[in-house]
Amino acid sequence: MTDAKFALILESFRKFLRRGAITHLSNMANKMRAADLAQVIRHLATVQEKRTVFEVIRDVKLKAAVLRETEPHAVGDLLQDMPPHDVVVALRELSSDDVADILGNLPEEKAQDILRLMKTEDSEEVEDLLQYPEETAGGIMTTDFVSLQEETTVKDAIAHLQETSAKQMVFYLYVTDAEGRLVGVVSLRQLLVVAPGTPLKKIMTTDVISVVTDMDQEEVAKLVARYNILAIPVVDKDGKLVGIITVDDVVDVIREEATEDILKLAGASEADLFQMSSFRAARMRLPWLLTSLVGGLITGVFVWLFQPTILQVIALASFIPVITAMGGNIGLQTSTLVVRGLATGRIESADLRAVFVKEFVVGVLMGTICGAIVGLVAQAWRGPAMLGVVVGVSMFIAITVASVMGTLMPILLRRLGFDPAISSGPFVTAANDITGLVIYLGLATALLQHLL
Amino acid sequence: MTDAKFALILESFRKFLRRGAITHLSNMANKMRAADLAQVIRHLATVQEKRTVFEVIRDVKLKAAVLRETEPHAVGDLLQDMPPHDVVVALRELSSDDVADILGNLPEEKAQDILRLMKTEDSEEVEDLLQYPEETAGGIMTTDFVSLQEETTVKDAIAHLQETSAKQMVFYLYVTDAEGRLVGVVSLRQLLVVAPGTPLKKIMTTDVISVVTDMDQEEVAKLVARYNILAIPVVDKDGKLVGIITVDDVVDVIREEATEDILKLAGASEADLFQMSSFRAARMRLPWLLTSLVGGLITGVFVWLFQPTILQVIALASFIPVITAMGGNIGLQTSTLVVRGLATGRIESADLRAVFVKEFVVGVLMGTICGAIVGLVAQAWRGPAMLGVVVGVSMFIAITVASVMGTLMPILLRRLGFDPAISSGPFVTAANDITGLVIYLGLATALLQHLL
Repeated sequence: MTDAKFALILESFRKFLRRGAITHLSNMANKMRAADLAQVIRHLATVQEKRTVFEVIRDVKLKAAVLRETEPHAVGDLLQDMPPHDVVVALRELSSDDVADILGNLPEEKAQDILRLMKTEDSEEVEDLLQYPEETAGGIMTTDFVSLQEETTVKDAIAHLQETSAKQMVFYLYVTDAEGRLVGVVSLRQLLVVAPGTPLKKIMTTDVISVVTDMDQEEVAKLVARYNILAIPVVDKDGKLVGIITVDDVVDVIREEATEDILKLAGASEADLFQMSSFRAARMRLPWLLTSLVGGLITGVFVWLFQPTILQVIALASFIPVITAMGGNIGLQTSTLVVRGLATGRIESADLRAVFVKEFVVGVLMGTICGAIVGLVAQAWRGPAMLGVVVGVSMFIAITVASVMGTLMPILLRRLGFDPAISSGPFVTAANDITGLVIYLGLATALLQHLL
Repeated sequence: MTDAKFALILESFRKFLRRGAITHLSNMANKMRAADLAQVIRHLATVQEKRTVFEVIRDVKLKAAVLRETEPHAVGDLLQDMPPHDVVVALRELSSDDVADILGNLPEEKAQDILRLMKTEDSEEVEDLLQYPEETAGGIMTTDFVSLQEETTVKDAIAHLQETSAKQMVFYLYVTDAEGRLVGVVSLRQLLVVAPGTPLKKIMTTDVISVVTDMDQEEVAKLVARYNILAIPVVDKDGKLVGIITVDDVVDVIREEATEDILKLAGASEADLFQMSSFRAARMRLPWLLTSLVGGLITGVFVWLFQPTILQVIALASFIPVITAMGGNIGLQTSTLVVRGLATGRIESADLRAVFVKEFVVGVLMGTICGAIVGLVAQAWRGPAMLGVVVGVSMFIAITVASVMGTLMPILLRRLGFDPAISSGPFVTAANDITGLVIYLGLATALLQHLL
C-alpha cells in the first residue's frame, strides 16, 4: 500500500470513528490485511479508538494476526477488556514465538491467567520460550516446526505433513536421530521428486547450518544473510533440535539492528522514540547530549586557558569553529564506516590492521587538502603573516588525529566488550573537538612571536 | 563461521598460496561453502592469488555459487583468463537474475561473447533482465519461477514440479490466466494436502501481493518486511507475470539500503569505501567535508564580525565550542530519527505534523535543561554578571532551532525529490553552527552594556 493510499484509509477510519459508524468501520476493517490494520490502529490517537477498531474485527484469524503485527508494548491496550478465554482462542491461531512475544509484554498476572487457560502442551511451549533472553536465537525462534526421524519414509513424511496444522509456513523438514539431535534437512520439493518408500536419511542434506539457543540475534541474522537460507534450525547445548528461526523474523531483526545502530551512532539511543511521550524521549536522549555538553565545556576551558594568545591575535577566534567542526565530522565519518563495517561483517578481525592503515592514509590525504584550503583562506584573512601556516598545519594534524581516533575507538570499544555503535558518536566528537583545539591554540601560542 | 575461525582459515589459505601448495589449497577450498570461499577470495591481496583459489575449485556448482557470492566489481578479475565456454558452463548453474548481475559487471565485449554462447532461451531471459534499472523490482527479480494456468490439476502441477530443474528454491506456484496475467498463488504445502484432481483455481489464494517491474527496490523490501512473505511476484504494466523476487535477495537489499543510509547520514557517501584505493575513498568523502569546511568558515566570518564584542568580553569565546557542538549534536540526532523513520516506514506522510510538534516539544525540553546547566556554569565562570543569562538563553534558542531544522530539513528534501539521508548530516550541522553562533554573539552584543 502506498503512503498516500494509507493516509486516505486512515482518514476514513477516523471519520467513521468520529461518527460512530460501526457498520462502515467493520466492513472496512474486515477487508484489510492484518499488517495494514495494525498500522491503522497504531496511528489512532486514543486507546478507546484503537480498541473499537480491534473489537470490530470478526475473523479470529485476522484478529490474531493483527495482535502479532501490533507493537509489543501496545498489545496490552487492545486486550485489556477482552475476556482471557477469547484471548486464548485468538492466540491459538499464532505460532508459539508470537504468543511468547505477546504474553511477554502483558502484565504478569494477565499473562499467567492466559497461560493457565491454554492447552497444557501449548502453554508449556510458550513458557519454555519465555525463558530465553529476548535478543537471542532462543528468544526469536518458534517451536512450530516439522521434524521426523531419519528412518521415516517419504510417504510417511507426506502423510505427517498432511496431518500437521499449518500455523507456520513449512519449507523444510528437519531430520533427527533417535535422541532428537538434528542430523539433516529435507526440502518439501525433494519429497515430491523421489520414490515414496525412500527413507529420509537417504535424501537429506547432512551439512546443516544451525545455531545454538544463546546466540545473539544479530549473529543469526548475519548467518541467514550470508548463506541465503529461509529458516535456520536452533539446537540446545546437546545438539537437540528445539526450534527454528524463519527468514521473515530475520528480516525484522536486520531492520531493527540497523535502526538501533543508526540511532546509537547519532546519539539518539536505541529505543523507539516516536512511541514515547516527549518527556521520556527527551530523557532518553539527554545522556548523549550531556556527553556532548561536557565535551563542549571542557573545550571551553582550553579556550579559557589560551585566552592570552587569543586576546593578542583575535583572528585566531575566527578559526575555532572550522577546526572543531572538521575534527568532529571526520571522526563521525570514520567511526561510522568502521561501526557499520563491523556490524555487517564487511570488516573482520583479520582486516583490522589493513583498515587502520587505510583510514590513516585517507586521513592524511584529506588533512592535506583541507589544511591547504583553510591555510590559504587564513593567509588571505586580514591577519598576521603566519596565521595561514598555524591554521593549515593545525587542521592537517586535527584531521589525521580524528581519522585515527575514529578508527580505533569502535575497535577498542568492541574489544572491551561494549557495543561499538553506542559511544562512537558523542565521545569521538567531543574528543576530537578537544584535541583539535589544543593542537590549534597550542601551536598558535608556540608561534606567537611570528603571529604578532 | 565465527570471526576467529574465519581468520584461521584465511591464514591457512595465505600460507598455502605462499608455499604454492596447490593440492592442500584445492582440498581445503572444495570442502568449503560458497559464501565463505567468496569471502576468502575477497580478502586475498592480489588478483593473482584470487584467481589461483578460484581455479582450484573443481565442482562447477561450487564455482558458480562462488561467482554469485563475489562482489559484482570483482567478478571480472576472476573470469579474466577463463575461456568463455567454461564461463557459460558455470553460469548455467545460476538463476537468471544472478547471471544478469554478473554479466552486467563484465566488460561489454566479454558479456556479449558469453551471451552468444548461451542457449538462446537462457540468453534472452538474461538480456531481458539486463534492461531493467539495477535498483528496481525488475533489476533484482529472477525469471526462474514456476507458473501454471489456473485449470491445471494438482496432479499435473506436481508432475510439472518434478520435471523442472531446481536452480531457485521453489516455495510457491504462481497461477496465471490464459493471457499470462497473475491470478493466484498456491503453496507447495497446499499441493500435498488436497485431492490430485483438484484444479489449481479451486485452492489458490487470489489475494496476491505483487509489484510492478519499475518499483524501487527499497519499496519492495518494505512490502516483504511488512507482510512477511518469502517471495513476491513481479508483473509488467499489463499484469503479466514476468518474475519473482525471493526474500534472500530482499535481505540483501535491506542491509544495503541500511548501510547506504547510515553512511550518507555520516557524510561518508554510499559507495563501498573499503574496496577502493585510499585516493578514491578520500575523493568520495571530500564533498561532505568541504560542505562542513565552508560551514565552519562562514561561522568564522560571524565570529570575525562580532570581534569587538569578544574583545570586550573574552569569556564569551570559551562558550563558542559548546554552543556549536550542542546545536550540531541535536540537529544530527533529530534528523537521523526522522530520516530513519521515513526509511523504515515508521513515519508516514500522515504523521509529519505530529512528528514536528513532538520534536519541537522535545527540543524545548532539552533546550531548557541544557540551557540551565550551561547558564549556571557560565554564571560560576570568572566572568561578567549577565554571562550566565546570555549563554543559557542562547543555548536554549539554539537547541530549539536545531530541533526544528533537524525535523524540517529531511522532510523538505524528500518533498523536493532528494534523498533525505544524503544531505541532512553536514548541511544541518553547518546550518546549526551558524545560527547557534549568531544567536549567541548577537544576544551578547545586544546585552553588551550588562556584560561589562
